[in-house]
Amino acid sequence: MKKLNTQSPDFQAELKALLAFETAQNPEIDRIVADICADVQKRGDAALIEYTNRFDGTSAQTIADLILTQDDLQAAFERLQPEIQTALKTAAARVESYHQRQKMESWTYEDEDGTLLGQQITPLDRVGIYVPGGKAAYPSSVIMNAMPAHVAGVQEIIMVVPTPKGERNDIVLAAAFVAGVTKVFTVGGAQAVAALAYGTESVPQVDKITGPGNAFVAAAKRRVFGVVGIDMVAGPSEILVIADGTTPADWVAMDLFSQAEHDEIAQAILIGTSQPYLDEVQAAMNRLIATMPRRDIIEASLGNRGAMILAKDLDEACEIANYISPEHLELSVENPQEWAKKIRHAGAIFMGRYTSESLGDYCAGPNHVLPTSRTARFSSPLGTYDFQKRSSLIQVSEQGAQKLGKIASVLAHGESLTAHARSAEFRLKD
Amino acid sequence: MKKLNTQSPDFQAELKALLAFETAQNPEIDRIVADICADVQKRGDAALIEYTNRFDGTSAQTIADLILTQDDLQAAFERLQPEIQTALKTAAARVESYHQRQKMESWTYEDEDGTLLGQQITPLDRVGIYVPGGKAAYPSSVIMNAMPAHVAGVQEIIMVVPTPKGERNDIVLAAAFVAGVTKVFTVGGAQAVAALAYGTESVPQVDKITGPGNAFVAAAKRRVFGVVGIDMVAGPSEILVIADGTTPADWVAMDLFSQAEHDEIAQAILIGTSQPYLDEVQAAMNRLIATMPRRDIIEASLGNRGAMILAKDLDEACEIANYISPEHLELSVENPQEWAKKIRHAGAIFMGRYTSESLGDYCAGPNHVLPTSRTARFSSPLGTYDFQKRSSLIQVSEQGAQKLGKIASVLAHGESLTAHARSAEFRLKD
Repeated sequence: MKKLNTQSPDFQAELKALLAFETAQNPEIDRIVADICADVQKRGDAALIEYTNRFDGTSAQTIADLILTQDDLQAAFERLQPEIQTALKTAAARVESYHQRQKMESWTYEDEDGTLLGQQITPLDRVGIYVPGGKAAYPSSVIMNAMPAHVAGVQEIIMVVPTPKGERNDIVLAAAFVAGVTKVFTVGGAQAVAALAYGTESVPQVDKITGPGNAFVAAAKRRVFGVVGIDMVAGPSEILVIADGTTPADWVAMDLFSQAEHDEIAQAILIGTSQPYLDEVQAAMNRLIATMPRRDIIEASLGNRGAMILAKDLDEACEIANYISPEHLELSVENPQEWAKKIRHAGAIFMGRYTSESLGDYCAGPNHVLPTSRTARFSSPLGTYDFQKRSSLIQVSEQGAQKLGKIASVLAHGESLTAHARSAEFRLKD
Repeated sequence: MKKLNTQSPDFQAELKALLAFETAQNPEIDRIVADICADVQKRGDAALIEYTNRFDGTSAQTIADLILTQDDLQAAFERLQPEIQTALKTAAARVESYHQRQKMESWTYEDEDGTLLGQQITPLDRVGIYVPGGKAAYPSSVIMNAMPAHVAGVQEIIMVVPTPKGERNDIVLAAAFVAGVTKVFTVGGAQAVAALAYGTESVPQVDKITGPGNAFVAAAKRRVFGVVGIDMVAGPSEILVIADGTTPADWVAMDLFSQAEHDEIAQAILIGTSQPYLDEVQAAMNRLIATMPRRDIIEASLGNRGAMILAKDLDEACEIANYISPEHLELSVENPQEWAKKIRHAGAIFMGRYTSESLGDYCAGPNHVLPTSRTARFSSPLGTYDFQKRSSLIQVSEQGAQKLGKIASVLAHGESLTAHARSAEFRLKD
């Protein structure tokens, strides 16, 4: 891991270099994805079946071979061991409970002229959840994407998940069952995104698509954005741990590993306020790494993009955190709620030594889909609100129209928009 | 205007054709914009000055020639006629009051194990507002973009507005003054967007860019998305009026004109439930068109994309509205609040005969930046919430870690993420 010190004259430049990550779009991938999207838009189910058989090594004859109903999902759930069933249900219930608190409600008020103003909240009609297949199959992602939609009141939640060589993942399907998914198509890649965005004979057109995927999926989501809504296009996952030295070094070491084990480009950074403590964590990592099945990935990730930063105090550490705007921030310190108040930018803040990021990843309640790559400066975790929308409500009273009409008329004439002005003036009594 | 009838067997196809609008991105524009963005990112102020002189016909020597301070904005305000000053201030105050109600607040709660969960709300640090110059210079847009940021608590609101041939628009600058803009750069186009996104020696890097612009501005915003946040990329403006025949035909005719006068691709649609009333509105339009300074634009817009639809009743009209998901919806009917409950998708709902869209455009209070081109199915008006963001808060108690740790451990092992599991298990006491 790189070692940085805030007292070094090069610190700012080193920090910037550490965070730099090129997310250049690949023109070749874009071209392939454009063709697939156009083809699915044109030929519907037939194209979807062909691409699925070609890319996933399946042998579907008709679209029916690629559809799972709620009964299928329930059956998958029932095949699981009771321990896993309980874990899924408990996690889903906690995520549901937290996301209920995010639900927006309609409101109105009347001004002194009897004019009513407000905001009407409605759920999206139908959404699509993309779930990766193969080795990166994460049931927790199914819950984190589908549950907010369910809580928002979305009537149809369509999930797509590729099943390479026809292999289905029971835990993933069971997660869809507990999270309220309506229907599953066992398709993936750009073809699945296109089917959801444009609709086919069998796949209903959705209003928004969320969920992570590979470069082809990301490119397809970017392409169909505007036709449907999309969530963020996520970068590599990151954690920043700020430690005051009161958390056992082993715990912090493992928290850094838990980020690094995702993939080689994941980023784990530790800021400490004492060199001996940083050394302790380094020693713990050196000792614990041997026990990690994903040792190679962890070493690559920490070697490429990991760092330990020595700061002079926690105030400075918080300022660095605000610059980094991390996806996950662990405040592994005494009085974490006080320090959290100094954090302006972070996807999720894990406070206190007992709050490992992994508890939040699975079951604490808040969403684990979070803004990456410094985008927490301007964006938020996935939430119930992403599956609701607002319509402004305006009912101007006759009396209100007299006052507002005159203002609108002046401003409309100032913009040379005569019809705007006349439309307001028609409502004036004199 | 086209005439459609819901009883026609071709109605669905005709409606779909009416709404079709190709928003294909132009590769030539994309290429030019990519070069400009890269150059501004590399050469900063020097590039910004060069492009501004070249494209806007100005002769700035240094960046100081392109900066307006709050004193300059105030001076512009003071040069205006008192009537316009009052209109701007009243509009700004109403918009401020409405947007105050949209402000999100932080919240937390404790579960039965003493685990604290919540959401911390923070404003963006610094935002950029793009304001078009020249003939489409709309002071109302300045208020509608800057005021929500101001209400959200954004500390720095940087506005960019091109001044072709050096001509400044006092009403636009005065609107910036009343809406709380911090600083103005008289630059525009892709170069202005790039300067805001990457920062230069003089233009501070912002976290989000909002505001409308031409094709170059839209392409630049799409390009820098991810480096900074952006608002929606808007399509042509639209209105849908549903009229039960109780509103004077002249009023409805002028409301349709007020949309059509924006530009040739704006869309105005009227749904009525009686043919005689639709005929009355048509007659009113035929009579009133002669009085319109923007007659050519209005005729082109209504001819290209306008329509009158005869529906069998208001229920059917609302269903069509939900399909159209209009930017602006006028419910020019009796008991409009009842009918509004049937509307699932619309940017803003204008209820009752006194509520012309133009009142909402300028001064009713709600924002006039609204989702276009059916995107109200999944998106919302610009609001205070667009300048705030959420960070999840999690503080697991020692007791909570015992319960959550076991669940996380089961699920993490299910996903073969051993470090995730171990990180949770370290917090278990046994």
